[in-house]
Amino acid sequence: MMMRMSSLFLRTLREDPVDAEVPSHRLLVRAGYIRRAAPGIYTWLPLGLRVLRKIEAIIREEMDGIGAHELSFPALLPKEPYEATGRWTDYGDGIFRLQDRKGNDYLLGPTHEEMFTLVVKDLYNSYKDLPLSIYQIQTKYRDEARPRAGLLRGREFIMKDSYSFDIDDAGLEASYQRHRDAYIRIFDRLGFEYVIVKATAGAMGGSKSEEFLARAAVGEDTYVRCTHCDYAANVEAVQVRPPAPVPYDDAPAAHAELTPGTPTIDTLVAHLNQAFPRDDRPWAAADTLKNVLVMLKHPDGTREPLAIGLPGDREVDQKRLEGQLEPIEVEAMDETELRSHPTLVKGYIGPGALGEKSASEIRYLVDPRVVEGTRWVTGADIDGSHVLDLVAGRDFTPDGTIEAADVRDGDACPNCDEGTLESARGIEMGHIFQLGRLYADALDLKVLDENGKLVTVTMGSYGIGPSRAVAAIAEGTLDDIGLCWPRNVAPADVHIVAAGKDPDIFAAADRIAHELDGLGVQVLYDDRAGKISPGVKFKDAELIGVPTIVVVGKSLAEGGTVEVRDRRTGEREDVPAERVVDHLVAIVRA
Amino acid sequence: MMMRMSSLFLRTLREDPVDAEVPSHRLLVRAGYIRRAAPGIYTWLPLGLRVLRKIEAIIREEMDGIGAHELSFPALLPKEPYEATGRWTDYGDGIFRLQDRKGNDYLLGPTHEEMFTLVVKDLYNSYKDLPLSIYQIQTKYRDEARPRAGLLRGREFIMKDSYSFDIDDAGLEASYQRHRDAYIRIFDRLGFEYVIVKATAGAMGGSKSEEFLARAAVGEDTYVRCTHCDYAANVEAVQVRPPAPVPYDDAPAAHAELTPGTPTIDTLVAHLNQAFPRDDRPWAAADTLKNVLVMLKHPDGTREPLAIGLPGDREVDQKRLEGQLEPIEVEAMDETELRSHPTLVKGYIGPGALGEKSASEIRYLVDPRVVEGTRWVTGADIDGSHVLDLVAGRDFTPDGTIEAADVRDGDACPNCDEGTLESARGIEMGHIFQLGRLYADALDLKVLDENGKLVTVTMGSYGIGPSRAVAAIAEGTLDDIGLCWPRNVAPADVHIVAAGKDPDIFAAADRIAHELDGLGVQVLYDDRAGKISPGVKFKDAELIGVPTIVVVGKSLAEGGTVEVRDRRTGEREDVPAERVVDHLVAIVRA
Repeated sequence: MMMRMSSLFLRTLREDPVDAEVPSHRLLVRAGYIRRAAPGIYTWLPLGLRVLRKIEAIIREEMDGIGAHELSFPALLPKEPYEATGRWTDYGDGIFRLQDRKGNDYLLGPTHEEMFTLVVKDLYNSYKDLPLSIYQIQTKYRDEARPRAGLLRGREFIMKDSYSFDIDDAGLEASYQRHRDAYIRIFDRLGFEYVIVKATAGAMGGSKSEEFLARAAVGEDTYVRCTHCDYAANVEAVQVRPPAPVPYDDAPAAHAELTPGTPTIDTLVAHLNQAFPRDDRPWAAADTLKNVLVMLKHPDGTREPLAIGLPGDREVDQKRLEGQLEPIEVEAMDETELRSHPTLVKGYIGPGALGEKSASEIRYLVDPRVVEGTRWVTGADIDGSHVLDLVAGRDFTPDGTIEAADVRDGDACPNCDEGTLESARGIEMGHIFQLGRLYADALDLKVLDENGKLVTVTMGSYGIGPSRAVAAIAEGTLDDIGLCWPRNVAPADVHIVAAGKDPDIFAAADRIAHELDGLGVQVLYDDRAGKISPGVKFKDAELIGVPTIVVVGKSLAEGGTVEVRDRRTGEREDVPAERVVDHLVAIVRA
Repeated sequence: MMMRMSSLFLRTLREDPVDAEVPSHRLLVRAGYIRRAAPGIYTWLPLGLRVLRKIEAIIREEMDGIGAHELSFPALLPKEPYEATGRWTDYGDGIFRLQDRKGNDYLLGPTHEEMFTLVVKDLYNSYKDLPLSIYQIQTKYRDEARPRAGLLRGREFIMKDSYSFDIDDAGLEASYQRHRDAYIRIFDRLGFEYVIVKATAGAMGGSKSEEFLARAAVGEDTYVRCTHCDYAANVEAVQVRPPAPVPYDDAPAAHAELTPGTPTIDTLVAHLNQAFPRDDRPWAAADTLKNVLVMLKHPDGTREPLAIGLPGDREVDQKRLEGQLEPIEVEAMDETELRSHPTLVKGYIGPGALGEKSASEIRYLVDPRVVEGTRWVTGADIDGSHVLDLVAGRDFTPDGTIEAADVRDGDACPNCDEGTLESARGIEMGHIFQLGRLYADALDLKVLDENGKLVTVTMGSYGIGPSRAVAAIAEGTLDDIGLCWPRNVAPADVHIVAAGKDPDIFAAADRIAHELDGLGVQVLYDDRAGKISPGVKFKDAELIGVPTIVVVGKSLAEGGTVEVRDRRTGEREDVPAERVVDHLVAIVRA
């Protein structure tokens, strides 16, 4: 259906919206794609809806292509299934809750794991019914604390969410891989730069997990990538590659030394260099073992202390730590709690007072770099004293390791021997992960196996946000003068501008528009007459960002040609008017 | 995309769902089209979603065809626009209200007049921008007191709502007519029996209004139709055709008579026949004029008395009365209120004590049948007395007429001289009406006219419920053995049943399915192997209701034929297997 700008419900705006924080938001509003209805809640105007629908269609084709079946759940959901999994409370302020006229509790679905699990439980009961993949493209709601950046973090948004159901782990792995392949095809077709990063499963639980991020400076997600290989991961998901164990046969015995007034790493390192200078190299923070005490807050409200040992040049990254411990939250240990463990001496805590076999009985986990044979300076559990030459695996044995240390640019790549990590920002566009049996256990989804025995189903979860994708693609492709859509998702294939008042110009533009329309080429036709100057029309065409712009103007009378512009490159070409339809069809179908 | 029943997410059920009140609900659940998620809230399974999408696509084509532009509003809406029009409170318990984490009020949109009005106000400002028609197909919410009949009255449902915007009444009339024509094309394409009835605009305000009803015994809407002409109207919208005035030159003067103990029409008529027998015919209730007192409750809470005069054989129909008075509600007049008008004598109230020029100053409206010259027996405003031969227009002049009397089978048709009215039931599928300037006034939607003067825009409103349509079409087309879809909305064109275990049968069925699929024919292919008998497959095919069923079974080996069944008529035809694809394509494209 040809869109004529003389009648299309569209107004481009000269002024930036006051609340726009990022370029895509500014341009999508100015170019008439979306309008704000409330914070984080948007109306899709005709051009925006076209882009959204094209993205949805690509997703749908690829999901159907891997044999997934589309269905559609309601957005208004009863409380009970979300109570069964604990998420009714776990979500805190993050979801919209409401009551019906009878006082029954409902929520606006933030994600539909429970509903998918229950519908399969409802209809299926045998291993013969599996594997199964089902999906929906549907409106979701989250009461974000700070909705921002237009469609990038909205409170009402569209999600494609799919789930796979398998009888065993090998099946889940295969379903996961099928979805991963489909996601790669989807993102390739959407036509913008993206990166697949290893991720943690977060509040969803589960194991293997990857995110598809659009590269974008305005992105809210920080990830790291290797300078050499294709490794990329969310900061939360980076797993340090432990060094090889160090031989320690020649290591001197551990010895406690007086280190008065050294409760911090800086004061300790200064003291070491003054009191115990080394010949080969000066003492550095990385030679010390820092022991950090935190309190774990379990979902049931109970608190438990945890000690984390890490090289003194590292800080505990709370997001990384919590990422390991979900749904447990991490808080600082307060003075009262510290005093309840009399063997711990603030500023001088050492492994001796930690670990489950210690007097304090505090679980003691260390950074993966603290491998057997490494030699440390650390607290002696006596005020003003440290131990030197304390050897891991000889002098102390932690209860395990944990990925809690911060990740820094220049850290070694966990995946190759040449590269180092560097951080970058992105917009989360898709997330695939292996849920495992978390929801199936909570909601009792079992099927009969080949031997007639009930077994719990294992699930995968796969999401893409088509509404966020509109903004992310816009963000990744826009330029100084406006939006600049990849062809597969542009609101039209060709934008025809009738530039001038001459009836011949309009007649030629009309003819070209109709011929293209008849050939199935999607045309946005600026047929506005009256006072609107060619300059205003050009500016609008640049702002709207259809990939190919055709200007029917003065050159028609002069040389019988029209101008074909490439919106991205700015390249212009004069094409004889009688050949331009074929020329454009070739461009569009290239 | 071919659907294979071996992998499709589908289970047909033998048992009726316990909460199913109507056949369409029962069958849509049993045949695996929908599942209940909560009262009045449903999940669309793959087959149901296909039907829904086909209906939406037909609606979209016809809306685009009249130049309407599609957009999409959020479902989660801020309170303020609905406060401006008063609907935040007017809706009472009928909408879902909620608050976000900051305590701001929101609602789940029950209908979007406010949002459409505001977006046009936001972007347009000139008569040159009009006429404009915009629409959306979107999820809506109403907290129905008694959600029932599955999709027929749900709490989360899908609506296509469009609005027209015009500068003047002639423009509105033209926009209304364009939508009306599009609706006729839509309902014709959907392929079921419907009727267009005159309607009142209801809570929406406005003037001209028509409903598209599916004929259905289970429908919630009662309407009347003429036995002779094509007149049809909602009971609320029936307008009695007033009889011609009666000459009354020869009428005797009104005379009060003692009628002791006759406070009701029955006692009065009995008394009249005993004390004042007539030669030509006995007195009947229709000879008396009954005066009914009610209280009007205005939206601001104030109460006002109203007297309604109607023939004694009629009752006041509260829905019809309220339909005239929206948004005023009607309540009975209590004893205290009656006593505050001392000139009114209960059981003997006559026109003399009523009307704005009377002592009681109660507004007095009469049934349209009470035309000039009609002669009545009515209360004399004295206990135990009535007036006879009281002539309308000579002895009393009411303040106006009102359509408050009940409508009955056998009443004269308002539209023709031959027919009478009969009542029928239907399901409201579409509603079109002229809103006028109600919302534009409330939200201050004005544009500049040709003379640079600000004028208020006039609007039309046009709705269809695609989700309700799924149930209404099912209801109108199902038969004893299952669903029976019209071809345009069926989940598939052809249902192929591989009936038997012979590999040749599956090979032939596979070939037919693939060839049809390649030709763009939508195939539901029952390729289930194993223990499922041909009988079970036939039952499923009948239940699911695809219009054409192809059975590939024993006759293949015997005579090289397959059986083509018409689901509606039950007709069966043996077709040579090698010709069946052409045969089916011809049926599907007929």
